[in-house]
Amino acid sequence: MPQHERDARLAVSTVIFALEPGVTPEGAERVASDRASLWIPLVRRLRDPGEGRWALPGGWLGAGEALEAAAARTLEETTGVTPRFLEQLYTFGAPDRSPGERVVSVVYWALVRPEETTGAIDDPNVRWFDPDDLPDLAFDHNAIVDYALTRLRSKLGYAQIAHSFLGPTFTIAELREVYETVLRVHLDPANFRRTVEASGALVETGEVRTGTRHRPPKLYRPAEAPTGDGMFRVPIAPHLRKSPS
Amino acid sequence: MPQHERDARLAVSTVIFALEPGVTPEGAERVASDRASLWIPLVRRLRDPGEGRWALPGGWLGAGEALEAAAARTLEETTGVTPRFLEQLYTFGAPDRSPGERVVSVVYWALVRPEETTGAIDDPNVRWFDPDDLPDLAFDHNAIVDYALTRLRSKLGYAQIAHSFLGPTFTIAELREVYETVLRVHLDPANFRRTVEASGALVETGEVRTGTRHRPPKLYRPAEAPTGDGMFRVPIAPHLRKSPS
Repeated sequence: MPQHERDARLAVSTVIFALEPGVTPEGAERVASDRASLWIPLVRRLRDPGEGRWALPGGWLGAGEALEAAAARTLEETTGVTPRFLEQLYTFGAPDRSPGERVVSVVYWALVRPEETTGAIDDPNVRWFDPDDLPDLAFDHNAIVDYALTRLRSKLGYAQIAHSFLGPTFTIAELREVYETVLRVHLDPANFRRTVEASGALVETGEVRTGTRHRPPKLYRPAEAPTGDGMFRVPIAPHLRKSPS
Repeated sequence: MPQHERDARLAVSTVIFALEPGVTPEGAERVASDRASLWIPLVRRLRDPGEGRWALPGGWLGAGEALEAAAARTLEETTGVTPRFLEQLYTFGAPDRSPGERVVSVVYWALVRPEETTGAIDDPNVRWFDPDDLPDLAFDHNAIVDYALTRLRSKLGYAQIAHSFLGPTFTIAELREVYETVLRVHLDPANFRRTVEASGALVETGEVRTGTRHRPPKLYRPAEAPTGDGMFRVPIAPHLRKSPS
């Protein structure tokens, strides 16, 4: 048996995905758009290892502190973001992932609604990035974000998680925009509506999205007890898939 | 910020699920049956904490050792079982999960074919248990097995993992037996066959299971490039679900 890893330190990090309507990234800029975009917050490291690089929000596990509590605390301390819940994503522990010492990092993630980001710290050392167009991050954090993106895109295909990006009620067009943004596809609106309505995953609230439109769209919420299995597979034809930018 | 958890130790543990045809558990006994059953190997602890209790195979993370390598090594050392691959399941780190010291345990899991258990150690301190009928295990290992069972049953519903329990080729009846055993349901054979055949998840090998039967059943293997999305949802009517024993 090899020598025990007595000196490994335990860290937590968090990948926060937020969807913002009406904005798309152009290089490092945010420009107004009729589309939405996906963003993650990163924190600039102020000391070595990786001083000056951007990194996932996180920190050390506290004495007597639960893993998820540590993730929520370090996220709040570094970014001001407070998701309603965090989910454990994966634990990264390659022996060489942090120079000089062995660090095992338990990574949490969350898909957040716009209002969950309102406490975000206004600080030049906290910035929101396009997760598909990141600079060289500290440690193995590029690989962690790539893993989280893959899981997000995969999970969107079989689990009803897309509404996590939206408010408690939403229109079907807003839900479609989540799929289009995260999966980088164009979806046929009528086909998407039929699939979603047939799935039993949503219920009508009886209200509509008020505004200036002639026919205000209906508002839906996730079904608490979905009919059938409450799942649907999003109808994505391969030729509609956008190539990654 | 709370005091850092300088003294946390990193452990790995593994949940191995094996499916054995023709045997079902009756209390602590194994009896011949026309059904199959699910088993997991446990190891009796020879020292405190938890001396004398059964626990998941595992051990300490080695210096310079990758997490998965540590899981495979400790599994082999304690049980002799060598799965072709392990997958990370979840990391358990509640502050009070191990008496006297803080231990964070990265848990791996595998669904194994019968031949992957052939090296299993013949030792009274290694025993295969019915995961739905376990004694009080050491630490939080009952909760870990329950979590693994929930994930297994859930994942069987949307991912094509059932064949991991079988050899490289199998009959549709053998595949159905996996679903029936793991999900504790009865499935209509004709309905199951139609669903699987329509999914594109399997291809015929052109061979049959030879034996004494008048019409030997066809052998299938998982499709490398499934037609469609290669997934199917198993047709389980709620009233067919067996109540847990």
